[in-house]
Amino acid sequence: MAAANLARQDLKVLAFDVFGTVVDWRKGLMTELAAIAQQHQLTINPAEVADAWRRRARPLMDRVSRGEMAFQLLDDLHRAALLELVAEFSLESLSQADLDRLVLAWHNLPPLPDAVAGLARLRTHFVVTTLSNGGMAMLVDVARAAGLSFDCILSTELVKSYKPDPRTYRMVPSLLAVRPEQAMMVAAHPYDLKAAAAQGMRTAFVRRPQEWGTGKAEVPDFAVDITADDFIDLASQLGA
Amino acid sequence: MAAANLARQDLKVLAFDVFGTVVDWRKGLMTELAAIAQQHQLTINPAEVADAWRRRARPLMDRVSRGEMAFQLLDDLHRAALLELVAEFSLESLSQADLDRLVLAWHNLPPLPDAVAGLARLRTHFVVTTLSNGGMAMLVDVARAAGLSFDCILSTELVKSYKPDPRTYRMVPSLLAVRPEQAMMVAAHPYDLKAAAAQGMRTAFVRRPQEWGTGKAEVPDFAVDITADDFIDLASQLGA
Repeated sequence: MAAANLARQDLKVLAFDVFGTVVDWRKGLMTELAAIAQQHQLTINPAEVADAWRRRARPLMDRVSRGEMAFQLLDDLHRAALLELVAEFSLESLSQADLDRLVLAWHNLPPLPDAVAGLARLRTHFVVTTLSNGGMAMLVDVARAAGLSFDCILSTELVKSYKPDPRTYRMVPSLLAVRPEQAMMVAAHPYDLKAAAAQGMRTAFVRRPQEWGTGKAEVPDFAVDITADDFIDLASQLGA
Repeated sequence: MAAANLARQDLKVLAFDVFGTVVDWRKGLMTELAAIAQQHQLTINPAEVADAWRRRARPLMDRVSRGEMAFQLLDDLHRAALLELVAEFSLESLSQADLDRLVLAWHNLPPLPDAVAGLARLRTHFVVTTLSNGGMAMLVDVARAAGLSFDCILSTELVKSYKPDPRTYRMVPSLLAVRPEQAMMVAAHPYDLKAAAAQGMRTAFVRRPQEWGTGKAEVPDFAVDITADDFIDLASQLGA
């Protein structure tokens, strides 16, 4: 659908996925992993550990999302996933304080280069919220650390589940008092957009080819409303 | 308790009441009431109607807070309270659109003179959230219209109740991941601070003697942690 049509359809709210869409989790984790590795004279590849960690956390969220496991905050799932990696990457020499520090590294991640300026521009035309698997406190930390300005922080913690549980998306129109089609999910991850579309939301796919350092963005296998190269491009396409 | 002690006790979060503490509901409503009165050639005293409206909404919130009435958004309670005033102030000539416009006037209120600068200064040292009886969408509107910048919007809508229901205050430490004593309720209303203190939160009473145009601030009949003349004074006392 052309962006001009969207504007006519009274788009009011943009809901942003955060990790990988707004902030660079990989870069942030690599920095912290490299610092800790140097301190302990560990010979790890920070990128490899960061990628493995992120991949290992996802099935834990999925178990919660499917109702197979009680809700725990993303910090707790990150800690569980990290503990799984200790043997795999020979991280046995890390102390409890080191593990805490790594879990907290997820609260302090650099914004993607276009994020701060793009969000500011989009906020002049739309209500801009997060819709992230990070907990409320975590997202507040992420926004403060990266200098991001949202109108509102929405976390899947508020419904004690994780994306793609449909209840997480329904929060956006419900709490922000718009119809589902007046809200657009903005994410670099097709699974997230597909689930948002199933709840009647509009979808903007943002290409983030360096999320995993591969140069290849995931490609949605369904029709999204907008595909954008970054938030500046998104703003232009939405007339903001 | 001296502010220096509070800093040592690791204060992290400031939770702000909004209507009457951050924004001037009376001035905003008077402006809109005066405009509508002129349009319909009504001879009302806008201040009198504004004050009566605010007073009439409170018992409705109390009924919800005590569990005697199902939760409805503050917009709906404002509408119900306004309908009660129609006969009293001879507002029968107002159309549905006029009533809608008045209910929406609560979304577009001027900030109190120190609010924007005070919040900005406090945000450099503390996580700054709302804790208001306004719904999430309403609070987002209020913040945008008044140019206010919060780290997070918390509404009693999230627990489907109203202050002083204890559950509304417990949200603050729970969602922002601090101990209750690391969070401070900031309000111009003693009832609000008393209920926050009962949940272990710190309290800052801000004098707003013109909330009802009387020049007299309510005075707490219990010990608050801080009494401040405005948010600038609060920031100074908290070392921000």
